[in-house]
Amino acid sequence: MKLAVIGLGLIGGSMAKDLRRTKFATEIIGVDSHPNNAKIALEVGIVDRIELLENAVKEADIVLLAIPVDKIAQVLPTILSQVSASTTVIDVGSTKREITEAVKDHPMRGNYVASHPMSGTENSGPTAALEHLFENKICIICDHQNSRPQHLALAEKMFQALGMPIAYMSSDEQDHTTAFISHLPHATSFALANTVQAIEDRNIIFDLASGGFQSAVRLAKSSPQMWGPIFWQNRDYIYEALESYIHHLEEFKKSLKNNDHEKLIALIENANNIRGILGGENSSLTKKEETIIKFYTK
Amino acid sequence: MKLAVIGLGLIGGSMAKDLRRTKFATEIIGVDSHPNNAKIALEVGIVDRIELLENAVKEADIVLLAIPVDKIAQVLPTILSQVSASTTVIDVGSTKREITEAVKDHPMRGNYVASHPMSGTENSGPTAALEHLFENKICIICDHQNSRPQHLALAEKMFQALGMPIAYMSSDEQDHTTAFISHLPHATSFALANTVQAIEDRNIIFDLASGGFQSAVRLAKSSPQMWGPIFWQNRDYIYEALESYIHHLEEFKKSLKNNDHEKLIALIENANNIRGILGGENSSLTKKEETIIKFYTK
Repeated sequence: MKLAVIGLGLIGGSMAKDLRRTKFATEIIGVDSHPNNAKIALEVGIVDRIELLENAVKEADIVLLAIPVDKIAQVLPTILSQVSASTTVIDVGSTKREITEAVKDHPMRGNYVASHPMSGTENSGPTAALEHLFENKICIICDHQNSRPQHLALAEKMFQALGMPIAYMSSDEQDHTTAFISHLPHATSFALANTVQAIEDRNIIFDLASGGFQSAVRLAKSSPQMWGPIFWQNRDYIYEALESYIHHLEEFKKSLKNNDHEKLIALIENANNIRGILGGENSSLTKKEETIIKFYTK
Repeated sequence: MKLAVIGLGLIGGSMAKDLRRTKFATEIIGVDSHPNNAKIALEVGIVDRIELLENAVKEADIVLLAIPVDKIAQVLPTILSQVSASTTVIDVGSTKREITEAVKDHPMRGNYVASHPMSGTENSGPTAALEHLFENKICIICDHQNSRPQHLALAEKMFQALGMPIAYMSSDEQDHTTAFISHLPHATSFALANTVQAIEDRNIIFDLASGGFQSAVRLAKSSPQMWGPIFWQNRDYIYEALESYIHHLEEFKKSLKNNDHEKLIALIENANNIRGILGGENSSLTKKEETIIKFYTK
């Protein structure tokens, strides 16, 4: 299986590592618009060789698009025009409506599988690539009825090789859900980092930052090249999520302002219910291992 | 050294474990108003025996108060009235103004050292107690000029036995700083948990929760018994922190509403600066190991 990975950063690099380790890919061709990323990926053995985009897509069995979501929307129509009928094209962007909209009338739409493997870290670039990053994490496949069965099957096989259970939903449903579960937590961390930096001198933050603060602010280290376009493409749903979030913060403010101790406790107790939903740090992984979950589109 | 630990939960239990391991304490007496906690702590060897509060404080060299901050403010005056002149009383609550105010005119005020060791987890109870929980984390000592030198010295020695660098500040400064660095991140996580639970069905949260969401929402599992009173005692500064935080969230909303892409990128880039302040996951620990940091009160 010849795999072309377009974008040799955290996500593309991590996938390449695991797809080689599991022998799903026998040859990996790398493409990156940043020559330095390409050079590093080659040096550390993430890819076997570097090619120009147009050459890579012509010879690959799978073209994996792991670049920022604005770039995916730009380049996907061109790639679909260049590939052969037997090539499967998969993107792994965090948003789906704008990307699928860009190719909805493309004659090769059936070769494309719209995906969102839900994993990552706050780091970027090929040196941030990790093995096992996707294991037991969910991969969302969107609008699967618009992919031809062979291409859908190969994409599913690839994500299963990475150890990922697969969920199916519409692009709209994925963008809405992801706005709350993934994009909002990034916004809450970005805003927390900005709040603390606005009021405290840097030394106090550095010295007093406990594990709790580090945990809540971790996602604030995520790159603007990746997250700017995600916020942009999903801005209506992220705006909705932010409005809802601010409402819930206002509830805390209100309980403090009104000296309403009972209300404060009730708000914390309700938040605590997330423990039962998420389980312990590892229990959710164990449960996920047991099953491939299928949600069908609304 | 005979140590009485009042409150055998996560914090008291973890301190007892390390103070025994490092041989700082040769005998540990436990006090807990919940008989079941006391029983567990005795069974797992966190304490050598269980006593009633009034007996424990009479024979201990150090009385360590590790109970919710409302309970500390209630019980501290009584304890100071019961101890001998040679006994050191230390509390480890997350707020300091209300607690120090409760004993400011007490004739034994000098025996008391107001402290806030900045570490913890989202779990509670004696079974959550961990060794090394405090290592390389900061301990704040407040209003140290109000503690007699011998009691201050012994408290410092105890926190150093736990591996903690010590910072000195006023109760007011600690409550303000901690509102932003510790209490606000709890509020942001509580509100995130409440937001997501309000809109999504439980299965979707469970299935789609990635590492990023888990990280941002971790603190939402923290107990209302501990955090309700902290929010209560520090409500003015937490209110201020929440207002500032909501302002920074509104900046994100505004950039989305006004199609201001440059502004959005600038907000993310500013948040990214937290990376330089906090360093990598371990670098801050290494730096902290090198030095005992002293801030003097304003």
